[in-house]
Amino acid sequence: MNTKSVKAYGTESPEADLKQLHIDRRTVLPKDVEIDILYCGVCHSDLHFARNDWGMTEYPVVPGHEIVGRVTQVGGEVSKYKVGDLVAVGCLVDSCRTCSNCEADLEQYCTGGWVGTYGGYDKHLDTNTHGGYSETIVVDEEFVLRVPENLDKAGIAPVLCAGITTWSPLRYRNVGKDSKVAVVGLGGLGHMAIKLASALGAHVTLFSRSTNKIDDAKQLGANEVIISTDESAMEAAAGRFDVILDTVPYAHDFNPYIATLNTNGTLVVLGYLGPLEPPVVTVPMIMGRKSVAGSLIGGIAETQELLDFCGKHNIVSDIEVINMQDINNAYERMLKSDVKYRFVIDMKSLKG
Amino acid sequence: MNTKSVKAYGTESPEADLKQLHIDRRTVLPKDVEIDILYCGVCHSDLHFARNDWGMTEYPVVPGHEIVGRVTQVGGEVSKYKVGDLVAVGCLVDSCRTCSNCEADLEQYCTGGWVGTYGGYDKHLDTNTHGGYSETIVVDEEFVLRVPENLDKAGIAPVLCAGITTWSPLRYRNVGKDSKVAVVGLGGLGHMAIKLASALGAHVTLFSRSTNKIDDAKQLGANEVIISTDESAMEAAAGRFDVILDTVPYAHDFNPYIATLNTNGTLVVLGYLGPLEPPVVTVPMIMGRKSVAGSLIGGIAETQELLDFCGKHNIVSDIEVINMQDINNAYERMLKSDVKYRFVIDMKSLKG
Repeated sequence: MNTKSVKAYGTESPEADLKQLHIDRRTVLPKDVEIDILYCGVCHSDLHFARNDWGMTEYPVVPGHEIVGRVTQVGGEVSKYKVGDLVAVGCLVDSCRTCSNCEADLEQYCTGGWVGTYGGYDKHLDTNTHGGYSETIVVDEEFVLRVPENLDKAGIAPVLCAGITTWSPLRYRNVGKDSKVAVVGLGGLGHMAIKLASALGAHVTLFSRSTNKIDDAKQLGANEVIISTDESAMEAAAGRFDVILDTVPYAHDFNPYIATLNTNGTLVVLGYLGPLEPPVVTVPMIMGRKSVAGSLIGGIAETQELLDFCGKHNIVSDIEVINMQDINNAYERMLKSDVKYRFVIDMKSLKG
Repeated sequence: MNTKSVKAYGTESPEADLKQLHIDRRTVLPKDVEIDILYCGVCHSDLHFARNDWGMTEYPVVPGHEIVGRVTQVGGEVSKYKVGDLVAVGCLVDSCRTCSNCEADLEQYCTGGWVGTYGGYDKHLDTNTHGGYSETIVVDEEFVLRVPENLDKAGIAPVLCAGITTWSPLRYRNVGKDSKVAVVGLGGLGHMAIKLASALGAHVTLFSRSTNKIDDAKQLGANEVIISTDESAMEAAAGRFDVILDTVPYAHDFNPYIATLNTNGTLVVLGYLGPLEPPVVTVPMIMGRKSVAGSLIGGIAETQELLDFCGKHNIVSDIEVINMQDINNAYERMLKSDVKYRFVIDMKSLKG
């Protein structure tokens, strides 16, 4: 297969900083779209994957799955996009397309195995897929998304992962005008959860450990902030919420939040991968038909729905734009939660 | 308030055997129905409550919340029942009737506090409510249920608790013809879960630790039995079930069962009150949008729906009829799971 060498940023080992390297992109196949990458958001997963925190990384790694760019070339059978279109690529670049989940627009739960934008298996090149920290990307049109032109091109990038990760459970749980939604944690996911739930018309509450996030949360659209270390405030919140989106990426006690769920309420785990310690106690779940559930990003159609919703409501992420060369410093700051609320790489800095 | 002294069976302390005693029943109020109790099922909760296993028992206790009997008297404003009707009383004899859950026919989640058939607060007599191990009971007609005359009067008694506890999550989760349902544990709840899910048209699987329940499960309506200690069988069951009803009343590892849930599947905890140990791991929940949920008995309308369904499909519990005087021995046998699948007391034995 013909390939084209492009500049990218990645790493060859868990210990090494990210640096400039070259990767091969395939030349467009009949259904392919070639995209000149304008912006790429920086997700916590990028860092985890680069450093092999999940023990499954194969090197070299080129992270990035919050990609916004312009179409520069299309294959002969592409019908949805043309050169010049403003498009995006999120966490998925392929799936089996035949399982019942793929047929139900739930490619993120593809039982045949979906292909991640980086670290997945690229069947065309028989290598790992490489993500958006690069000049260009070539993706089958079925996994390319259309970006409304009215949106800030850098700010919309994090919607491709942080946004859809919170949007999908809000939609699946039918959040709307009369819903009471709470969000645990105010980071990349949490700030999008507040914006999106608020735009859906829900009453939105942020749970936060510190009082210094109150003003920020309200500016993002939260109706109120409950300080989770304040026991009397937590008691007063008993039985209030229909849906809680828990975006905290480390182990923590879910029980105080479950107590604030209404009858039939669901706490959706978005950020934490691991055992629920301290253990969840079943009694309040049984006494109120409450659930603890998981949710993973979203499907292609649902991600397009979100982009369109963002276009209509002029919603983008709150971001700090960086140059590609700043990525290692950005990772260190991200580990300290020193970002409001997402870094986005201006890819001009790689190309220049 | 006028009362009538009736014979009952109960206990004055956690250590004491149950024995015959006398309790007061109120004379009928305008909305009350007096019921001559024919049969009363024996639930695990009866034993836990008699022995103060949950630390909230006030003595004396008269257990029993699977009550079937005939109406002997009705108050002047009773419109639903008349003398001679075959009726039942389950786990609830009152609720606040004004909260949003009561208004939604979810009295079991009444936020004002529902009144248990025993061990609740009897506002009329300013004492604890007393259950079905007695000659008669007096209940507001709104909490009385109609029993189809074609059903076995002893066999239908356990439907009032074991039945509705499994029926409610099957209905809430929309189990029907194309559903794949699994049941963990084959006791009072488990055997009703198999019968009811099967009658709803679902494909039903029993998870069991031992091979000696295979024939029984199939006779009850299970399509198959998976031996939960057989690792390869458990692996082969990955991703298969829409709903799992877990009826096991002690702490156990939920993770192997969660692995057998399909995308969007839910494991419903019915039997175990306590911390989830070993801890549930979130990864498969996130990767497949799976849930762990609780469920508590059912509301009055839903219990009537179940009784009518049982009447139509001629479903009753598999029982062993005992005399009231055998109750202490029955408790010991119940602790050893030595019953297929529910003891039911023939109340003639108390009256004789």
